[in-house]
Amino acid sequence: MRVQRLPARARYDRATLEAILDESFVGHVATVLDGTPIVIPTMYARVGDRLYIHGSTGSRMLRALQAGATACVEVTLLDGLVLARSAFHHSMNYRSVVAYGTFEMVHGDEKVRAMEALIERIESGRWARVRQPNRKELAATTIMSIPLSEASAKVRTGMPIEEPSDLDWPVWAGEIPLTLTRGTPVEDDAGMAARAFSR
Amino acid sequence: MRVQRLPARARYDRATLEAILDESFVGHVATVLDGTPIVIPTMYARVGDRLYIHGSTGSRMLRALQAGATACVEVTLLDGLVLARSAFHHSMNYRSVVAYGTFEMVHGDEKVRAMEALIERIESGRWARVRQPNRKELAATTIMSIPLSEASAKVRTGMPIEEPSDLDWPVWAGEIPLTLTRGTPVEDDAGMAARAFSR
Repeated sequence: MRVQRLPARARYDRATLEAILDESFVGHVATVLDGTPIVIPTMYARVGDRLYIHGSTGSRMLRALQAGATACVEVTLLDGLVLARSAFHHSMNYRSVVAYGTFEMVHGDEKVRAMEALIERIESGRWARVRQPNRKELAATTIMSIPLSEASAKVRTGMPIEEPSDLDWPVWAGEIPLTLTRGTPVEDDAGMAARAFSR
Repeated sequence: MRVQRLPARARYDRATLEAILDESFVGHVATVLDGTPIVIPTMYARVGDRLYIHGSTGSRMLRALQAGATACVEVTLLDGLVLARSAFHHSMNYRSVVAYGTFEMVHGDEKVRAMEALIERIESGRWARVRQPNRKELAATTIMSIPLSEASAKVRTGMPIEEPSDLDWPVWAGEIPLTLTRGTPVEDDAGMAARAFSR
């Protein structure tokens, strides 16, 4: 699957593609449900050449994917706003991956390894420290995977493209970088205990 | 269109929905192209009760939308990672909107107003300062809009849900906030002039 638009932005090397998938947290999974396109955000983790998503066994989308519906997954990191001298050339810097394929159900040890990968994405080493899923929780969780064989990446970096005749236009032009930043962790306090019962 | 999964997270008030759309920069537009679901990231702007996207007249997706293909647009703000004591209850805090509908082509003054809205999202007051689109640029830009009549929002905030029996598990639990942060603007320098000719 080759990138159709702006092919100069296409990157096909595996390292670029995997780095994008390993940095972002949210994948946008699209499929067709009752004849209508649908796209929902979901957590995912990459393990080798497959992408794993998880969800509730009650999810309508996961049930459609389980029935073999074709899918498309897109992951995008927004790196900056690109301010040009002309309205036309404003843009964004980003790194994105689009993968096409069909999801497969994941079972047994591979399912547990996928759950581990999802937790490790959040905090390295955390899987060994949290309470492991019990039989009921495993049964309530659907894990599915899609191969990355039909995946491609697209990257835009740098400054605005400008018409040469615009270069003297009296307006600031350049890039405003955007970064997803981790803030100060907020610990779940003792009051948690009481609230947990009412949820 | 009511939210099916986790209805407790659904928010239907207009202000919540509009605030999410007005904060994020990237919309994920899904449709069906040649029988295959496809989802691509795109800039957008909300004006009133419609969402406007733009793209090249050569875009295969925009041509499919122009031909009346049904679509789904999803916008998600990732607000935090939610670390629970059990693997099962790890989650993310987020605000998302999903809108269903059919895109319409936008022409004339409405088209120029949509381009203005796209530029104003990047920097308030900028539209008046940049070079306005000329006839050729207007012709090369497709602007389409989708109504927000079939849109709903979903929000998760706060601490992990926990099983009461997990509350003494010896692991840190809580939220790691995530914020999309603007960095120091990088001005397009004088060397720009030479580079612009070679692009």
